[in-house]
Amino acid sequence: MGSGPTNPDARVLRAMGTGLVGQFDPAFTALMVDTQDLLRRALRTRNRATFPVPGTSRAGMEAAVVSVVEPGERVAVVENGRFGLLFEHIARCAGADVVAIRAPWGTPADPDDVARGLDASGAAALLVVHAETSTGVMNPVREIAAAGRRRGATVIVDAVCSFAGAPLETDTWELDIVVAGTQKCLGCPSGLAPVTYSDAVAARMARRRSPIRSNYLDLTQLDRYWSPERLNHHTAPTTMVYGLHEALRLVDEEGLDARIRRHRAAGEAMAAGLQALGLRLYGEAVGPAKMPMLAPVMIPDGVDDAAFRAGLLEAHGVEIMGAFGDLAGRIWRIGTMAGNARPAPVARTLRALSDALGGQAWEALPAALAAVERRFEALAQAA
Amino acid sequence: MGSGPTNPDARVLRAMGTGLVGQFDPAFTALMVDTQDLLRRALRTRNRATFPVPGTSRAGMEAAVVSVVEPGERVAVVENGRFGLLFEHIARCAGADVVAIRAPWGTPADPDDVARGLDASGAAALLVVHAETSTGVMNPVREIAAAGRRRGATVIVDAVCSFAGAPLETDTWELDIVVAGTQKCLGCPSGLAPVTYSDAVAARMARRRSPIRSNYLDLTQLDRYWSPERLNHHTAPTTMVYGLHEALRLVDEEGLDARIRRHRAAGEAMAAGLQALGLRLYGEAVGPAKMPMLAPVMIPDGVDDAAFRAGLLEAHGVEIMGAFGDLAGRIWRIGTMAGNARPAPVARTLRALSDALGGQAWEALPAALAAVERRFEALAQAA
Repeated sequence: MGSGPTNPDARVLRAMGTGLVGQFDPAFTALMVDTQDLLRRALRTRNRATFPVPGTSRAGMEAAVVSVVEPGERVAVVENGRFGLLFEHIARCAGADVVAIRAPWGTPADPDDVARGLDASGAAALLVVHAETSTGVMNPVREIAAAGRRRGATVIVDAVCSFAGAPLETDTWELDIVVAGTQKCLGCPSGLAPVTYSDAVAARMARRRSPIRSNYLDLTQLDRYWSPERLNHHTAPTTMVYGLHEALRLVDEEGLDARIRRHRAAGEAMAAGLQALGLRLYGEAVGPAKMPMLAPVMIPDGVDDAAFRAGLLEAHGVEIMGAFGDLAGRIWRIGTMAGNARPAPVARTLRALSDALGGQAWEALPAALAAVERRFEALAQAA
Repeated sequence: MGSGPTNPDARVLRAMGTGLVGQFDPAFTALMVDTQDLLRRALRTRNRATFPVPGTSRAGMEAAVVSVVEPGERVAVVENGRFGLLFEHIARCAGADVVAIRAPWGTPADPDDVARGLDASGAAALLVVHAETSTGVMNPVREIAAAGRRRGATVIVDAVCSFAGAPLETDTWELDIVVAGTQKCLGCPSGLAPVTYSDAVAARMARRRSPIRSNYLDLTQLDRYWSPERLNHHTAPTTMVYGLHEALRLVDEEGLDARIRRHRAAGEAMAAGLQALGLRLYGEAVGPAKMPMLAPVMIPDGVDDAAFRAGLLEAHGVEIMGAFGDLAGRIWRIGTMAGNARPAPVARTLRALSDALGGQAWEALPAALAAVERRFEALAQAA
């Protein structure tokens, strides 16, 4: 019940136990094509260039940055959490002249601030995290991307945590590059990073003055491997592709909109349950900017973070997450992602917390469970 | 029966269908420690820094180069095949001043040539491929590394294909950095690249004047994640680690020496069988420099490369590989790796080839199968 990896569906696990075929076997290239079609649907895009980068989510972030940004180019990064900081670091590694547009952790970035930051810096690219998993806050990516687009900046969106769990409209929002994650709301093990980008971005890469500084994370080569050209680049991580394909099939069968509604209901149920137990949510995250798939909750006074979480795992088999930077030891991050965005895992987590916290929390458990039940009943009635 | 991915053992596939635990769950960190111990045994090293890079083999090659080499530094690359060329490209991406030490494709590199190339260039690092899978030739890495070491160059070895299938003595041969592969003789799906490096290399990285140009492929950060510090870097590709762990357990149970003997026997059996069918092996590869786990074989006159291989896959379920560059359309590459380094897959491949080639090859099949049987009988008697 942390922020990932989440528990994959049994079908995904079974797919990953399947024997291998060669990467140019027609059976595998057909699976690749189908995976791309399913990815386009889940990312709500018609972008031709839509494929997984062969590494974990941050490989996708770095591939996007290193393939687009030229050394010395000015890049603006929206920073209001740990993954914004990661984007900054990745951009510096790529040789960019980085300008950070900061907002306090726990609050969403303001599109007007971003617009001013872009005007002041004249940045050629804008990097922004959609769901800032370190704080539980959603950034208004649609508005931020519009500000970037109006100023001619290439907008790169980290949608690792929002993908398949919150609204993410690549084409309607005109996002230039979107990097998704597999191990969060999609419910597929970590190891691939789906990306999609527009033809305009592909043209920009083709016009670069300097060569891309990476071979492995070069999106133009990966695109040629995932295209009918089938450029021989890396050896496909076959098992990971099997898992991604099956996880995307599950999204398609459920329907993306229904899946997003389920994540919203589960997030609201978890938040209501935690509050009923007497716990307080962190920062502005309680408001409309709260991520639907993650509840950031203040650690009660006198509770030892690491010892408490270890005990919860040991006694109840329930994993929740600590935090980063200044938030370490101050908040827990409790996820409701993929298969965990359902009544039983939410209730199990609340039971475990009330047992481990004891006292008032234990007494409040029935009320917390009732709140969870009400929220999921409302979801069922709306369907 | 190509050059990878090879067919994993059923135990590896089953391990990869296992449910996930969190990356800091004690059950998982214990598995990480055990994986490192098994890796050290398979790489014949006591190096503390021994762990998998979270990407396919070329991610490991790039991680080694980008973490060691500073922009502008002179780097010598031994090039006698496609993977030597890849090393050159990766080194250029890392900003190195690349000097290629070339030998004709199909012949092993000469350590004296390498020594002269190092003397002439004064290179700070030397990159060399152990088993050049594009041509079927082994480079004498021990002697080449000694030449590099005597000149103070950091030696980075691509042992992707030789790992767990041919002698590879990291400590005895005093190799600075070794990059291994999972999807060849180890019989684990592609997606991780085990690396090992000495404390001297770690000290060199710590002394860099310029920051490492990658976040994702930064060996110093990956080392800190695989160390008791457990730096929170990428989200572990859990399923891949499960698979690697189980594949390494199989190596340990079989015994590395026995596994290497099995690969040698299978390679000799395949070569003898192919020659009995009337096929000719390519270049110097027939001599002592032939890779034990791959047979490069001349495509007979009048046979269409792609159509023949597609037919073999369709009619017999047997995959063999084409080749790269000038060798494309001229040779096939037939592997005997991991579970395929056994009598039944070798015999099945020869049956399929004799059927598809027809004529003399078909008539010669009994002799080819007898040659295979003799070679494996000799292996059994030696045990």
